[in-house]
Amino acid sequence: MTTEHQTATMVYASADALREFAAQALMRLDVPEEDARIAADILLESDLRGIDSHGITRFEQFYVTGIQEGRISPRPTIQTMSEAAATALVDGGGGLGMVVGYRAMQIAIDKAETAGAGFVTVCNSRHFGIAGYYATMALDRNMIGLAMTNSGPSVVPTFGNEARLGTNPIALAAPVGRGTPFVLDMATSTVAAGKFEVAARKGLPVPPGWAGDEQGTPTTDPRLARNGRHYSPLGGSPEMSSYKGYGLGVMVDILCGVLSGAGSSRQLQQRGFVGHFFGALNIETFRPLADFTAMMDDMHDDLRNTPPAAAGQRVLVPGDREFATKAERLAKGIPLYPDTVESLRRLSQSLGVPIEL
Amino acid sequence: MTTEHQTATMVYASADALREFAAQALMRLDVPEEDARIAADILLESDLRGIDSHGITRFEQFYVTGIQEGRISPRPTIQTMSEAAATALVDGGGGLGMVVGYRAMQIAIDKAETAGAGFVTVCNSRHFGIAGYYATMALDRNMIGLAMTNSGPSVVPTFGNEARLGTNPIALAAPVGRGTPFVLDMATSTVAAGKFEVAARKGLPVPPGWAGDEQGTPTTDPRLARNGRHYSPLGGSPEMSSYKGYGLGVMVDILCGVLSGAGSSRQLQQRGFVGHFFGALNIETFRPLADFTAMMDDMHDDLRNTPPAAAGQRVLVPGDREFATKAERLAKGIPLYPDTVESLRRLSQSLGVPIEL
Repeated sequence: MTTEHQTATMVYASADALREFAAQALMRLDVPEEDARIAADILLESDLRGIDSHGITRFEQFYVTGIQEGRISPRPTIQTMSEAAATALVDGGGGLGMVVGYRAMQIAIDKAETAGAGFVTVCNSRHFGIAGYYATMALDRNMIGLAMTNSGPSVVPTFGNEARLGTNPIALAAPVGRGTPFVLDMATSTVAAGKFEVAARKGLPVPPGWAGDEQGTPTTDPRLARNGRHYSPLGGSPEMSSYKGYGLGVMVDILCGVLSGAGSSRQLQQRGFVGHFFGALNIETFRPLADFTAMMDDMHDDLRNTPPAAAGQRVLVPGDREFATKAERLAKGIPLYPDTVESLRRLSQSLGVPIEL
Repeated sequence: MTTEHQTATMVYASADALREFAAQALMRLDVPEEDARIAADILLESDLRGIDSHGITRFEQFYVTGIQEGRISPRPTIQTMSEAAATALVDGGGGLGMVVGYRAMQIAIDKAETAGAGFVTVCNSRHFGIAGYYATMALDRNMIGLAMTNSGPSVVPTFGNEARLGTNPIALAAPVGRGTPFVLDMATSTVAAGKFEVAARKGLPVPPGWAGDEQGTPTTDPRLARNGRHYSPLGGSPEMSSYKGYGLGVMVDILCGVLSGAGSSRQLQQRGFVGHFFGALNIETFRPLADFTAMMDDMHDDLRNTPPAAAGQRVLVPGDREFATKAERLAKGIPLYPDTVESLRRLSQSLGVPIEL
């Protein structure tokens, strides 16, 4: 993820220290301690898994400023507006997306405990960080977990020339008997915004097909691509079936936006909130957990042992890279870019929460 | 879909006549009338929606021969093996996938009627035709419908050089207030096998990136691609995020194969059956149906009105093309290739069921 040149200028900080800092900072902003710790854990889990674009780098911009400017409520009333044995609609009360998401996923899991399945759609929430966190919450309860969110428009429908969809990610996690669990966590666009930032920091072009500039003209300049809000849906081009990535993005909008009333990606512009969707499937209501996890292990072995396309290549299972990064970062610390270090020092000063970097 | 040269050699038959023929043929093969009519309806709905590869063209090869050779049971015992308020595991008894799928989706819908959600995984089934049919079954009950199936390996994991996944489709349908409903029905590979067949019939090359030959060498020859069983996952290449299409394919395997015990795509080779997964979400347990469908209509308008990328292009909503084809084919009939006409005449003779073509 980082070049040698940059590694020299990176600062490494322990996840524990950053997590504590983020929690304390949120508490200074009037977020209750339990909620602050939930949000900080989700934020740092993103850094640990290597999804830097959703971690501490965005803490100030997405969350602190949001609370300070009144767009995010530090003490939201999170309410179940309607429910059945296996479903619920939750109003997030304009709170931190991580807190709203955590509570809503807990409801899905609790419902799945008795009904076998729990599916919860959420309105009036805010940016919730990585979808994969909520999906993996199900694993400790021996469930399959699902999480999605919509977001403001940046993705262009196939044959169109204006953004109508968010990057609308889908995450699914499933438990295993040995090794790391299955965790798919993917934007339904070819790439999410973070990849443009990484390329821009490295001064490298991005592949053709990822995005267009503001006019929709294809570009390989990561800054033009990042700001152009003409990202391609997964597939990249009509010839390569981008209508599928586009269709998956709309699916996410239906489940997160239309089912909850939050609005589809484009409607969010007027409404200012986002919607989420969470699901849990209780494996033991289908068949014995040990049978399920043994078959997961066989499948994972089988996938990882696929003959490689070229020497030095290796087939991974979704989640492998993230958990390898997590192990590495738990040992070595989280690498922070100079501008992130600056942002954290600024927050430390203004909020009066000490940090050592 | 067809060139002028071929249109001249095509025969057009009414969907009603073909549906009746298929039902009568299945009854001659000892399938009970109700089941035969279900299977024939699903088969012809595929032709009506323009998914020719899953329609009457495959009737002999996939279904008739399967029953005659004892791989498909005409009178299966379809059993619920375990269940909770919102979930069930169904054993298909080795029956026709369409009959098993129809019954299992009904269970999901019935559970969603009371519990809000119904999710059903299925083992011991066979090829079930188009996933989209089952998803759309939910629409009449004011629900969102979901359907998936796994299948024998033809798709290569990212960085690998051997098929480990099926084309593992995902279908989701949602109701609307006006116009045609949202129906996404997509293989998680860049393209499904049918596209290679279409190109081969037309004598046209396929785009680079769709597939490799038997050795995994990229090819644009549709016959080599069709038989090579080295299809690319959606995304096409690592650079274009094919690990997402691959991850979605594994997700389908988890829900259809591992959760049901049918086995993941590769394990199916030994087992000879496939697994499915069905879901239904009862919209009114979340919020009033009229609010949901009004917001769907707004979103659909918004998507269809996206400024086009080029003159003459138009943004569609998933399902638009299929329902336009359906209207056209209800009026003009289903176009049949000469080899399909031959196949149907052969069946007519051998089974003693009249057909006029």
